[in-house]
Amino acid sequence: MSHATKRVLNFNAGPAGLPLPALERARDELLDFNGTGMSIMEHSHRGKAYEAVHEEAIALLTELLQVPKTQQVLFLQGGASLQFAMVPMNFLKAGQTAAYAISGGWAEKAFEEAKRVGSAVAAASTREESGVYLRVPKQADLKLDPNAAYLHTTSNNTLYGTQTLHFLDSGAVPHVCDMSSDFLWRPFDVSRFALIYAGAQKNIGPSGLVVVVAAKAFLEGAREDIPKILRYQTHAKENSLYHTPNTWGIYLARNVLAWLKSLGGLSAMELRNRAKATLLYGAIDGLSSYYRAPVERDSRSVMNIVFRLPNENLEKKFVADAEAQGMVGLKGHRSTGGIRVSTYNAVSVEDVKTLVSFMDAFAKKNPV
Amino acid sequence: MSHATKRVLNFNAGPAGLPLPALERARDELLDFNGTGMSIMEHSHRGKAYEAVHEEAIALLTELLQVPKTQQVLFLQGGASLQFAMVPMNFLKAGQTAAYAISGGWAEKAFEEAKRVGSAVAAASTREESGVYLRVPKQADLKLDPNAAYLHTTSNNTLYGTQTLHFLDSGAVPHVCDMSSDFLWRPFDVSRFALIYAGAQKNIGPSGLVVVVAAKAFLEGAREDIPKILRYQTHAKENSLYHTPNTWGIYLARNVLAWLKSLGGLSAMELRNRAKATLLYGAIDGLSSYYRAPVERDSRSVMNIVFRLPNENLEKKFVADAEAQGMVGLKGHRSTGGIRVSTYNAVSVEDVKTLVSFMDAFAKKNPV
Repeated sequence: MSHATKRVLNFNAGPAGLPLPALERARDELLDFNGTGMSIMEHSHRGKAYEAVHEEAIALLTELLQVPKTQQVLFLQGGASLQFAMVPMNFLKAGQTAAYAISGGWAEKAFEEAKRVGSAVAAASTREESGVYLRVPKQADLKLDPNAAYLHTTSNNTLYGTQTLHFLDSGAVPHVCDMSSDFLWRPFDVSRFALIYAGAQKNIGPSGLVVVVAAKAFLEGAREDIPKILRYQTHAKENSLYHTPNTWGIYLARNVLAWLKSLGGLSAMELRNRAKATLLYGAIDGLSSYYRAPVERDSRSVMNIVFRLPNENLEKKFVADAEAQGMVGLKGHRSTGGIRVSTYNAVSVEDVKTLVSFMDAFAKKNPV
Repeated sequence: MSHATKRVLNFNAGPAGLPLPALERARDELLDFNGTGMSIMEHSHRGKAYEAVHEEAIALLTELLQVPKTQQVLFLQGGASLQFAMVPMNFLKAGQTAAYAISGGWAEKAFEEAKRVGSAVAAASTREESGVYLRVPKQADLKLDPNAAYLHTTSNNTLYGTQTLHFLDSGAVPHVCDMSSDFLWRPFDVSRFALIYAGAQKNIGPSGLVVVVAAKAFLEGAREDIPKILRYQTHAKENSLYHTPNTWGIYLARNVLAWLKSLGGLSAMELRNRAKATLLYGAIDGLSSYYRAPVERDSRSVMNIVFRLPNENLEKKFVADAEAQGMVGLKGHRSTGGIRVSTYNAVSVEDVKTLVSFMDAFAKKNPV
């Protein structure tokens, strides 16, 4: 572009900031993808140009996560919210009960949807009497029926800023995990999970796309008496091309995944993400007379750092002053209040250093 | 952009070509939407910047189609294929039967999905013994039980190039219509329909988005015993913001709808679309010893013009020679063969004139 573009520091919880190189690539080929004279959006999903992108996105994700041959990557639509329904529709059979670990607002929504489909119970819950969540369930909290159809967990909770750094062990019960808000933050053993799903709009790409990584055997054993479009196996058999996929979303995910690989993959990303979280929690704890992190220490999220100021007026001023300095997305969720800093993969260590400097200066300039 | 972009003439059946001004607008603000320092994809769907786009897209569609206050516009995910399941899940109650007019491959898929949900019958079918469709159902073909839960029709059939220019009259039975491949080609009376749906990737925007226009009273009477995410009423109550929508898809639809309005709206578009179809069918009929349109004359589609050449080798050469001259997307569907010219709104009269000149020259250069 001939004109200079001024970009803000984006700490949104999702849809979140995307890596600039992934966006620049999309801009540069928006009218003409790979010399085809068409945008990628204008290509048939059954044509060679798009199919190469589709395969590359799957291959990159497979490589980055070291997805074993027993599992399959799917690109679906409808976000995590449709997964809340598809999981019980596919895997909760008559006479069975599904188990849910309740760790926050999204887990509650998944649980409610399962109860509309069949029998579901809470195998653990860290909900406080006041309705908030200050920690994630630990193994000792889990009361899991070994005959459960599956155990559903939520790895990271955007609203409350809590995260499961050590996955629960579900034993022989298939483990289904909503990783929407921390997928790809670090390497992990995919084979532990029967099914993982993640809405794209945090760490993968734009909204309107959801990534699923599932054990092939788990999909093969699913219910067949539901609409075809809602069966995972339908999409697995057709490599996510049963119907027209969100081609733009998958294309942009490809750009993001290529960027992730160029930075050294998920091990490098973990170092970077831990460095950012260390900086932020360090700033909060270092000024503990001013900033306060409500979350229990061993449940603190690396992705969504939540904290409070001495009062709500100062919180409002904090958000406004930060925005005036080009830092956006810091207001906490409307149900919790306070400040929330989302530090997904696209947020750099430099971005966080800028915010930490601002936090130091703000506390000095605005004493209680 | 500083470099010249060479665009092809795109006759794809879908995902299809998009209007260049809509794409240029998207490119120019891809890194910085409206001076916010972020891409529209990076904005929260609950923030002011995105909400303005969301409202503008709804307002433009409402204006272009003159949607009455009794109806509501929704932007959903999952394409028409998810609608095939959502329609019977929402509107086919125990003890009821749904009626389907079978006019092509997509109608068959919708019918099959309904039969997985409940009781559904074919109220009309124009399927030939050979399995193909050469015309659309007419009013006299319709055997509609007045107690049917709804009548489902498909206005245009991309595979076979047939189109319903006079909608069937369903009497007091709610009329549900899949308009995926001819939505917005002309003005029509929205109030005749209980529910219309259209996958975006032909005439509205990129894939991954589906537009629904529904009667509010019809949605209010829907089943409530299904997963919340699959209830139309869930989305209607929240103005399509119950969960994170496909923000990029809606943004690009906004750009396309603004372009449609700037050209004079749907009346202007109808003139333009009829002119394109007249040119193409004129070329076919004018060279009837060489080109042959299999579809019955009064079922000929204005959107997908299907024809055959004297033999399959010539058809292959036609597609290859056209592509060498910068015209793509002309190969017929794999299930039907032949040539298919999709002339959605983004295709200009000039584009079609170029193709017609090519057709004349091709017939002369390649005698049988």
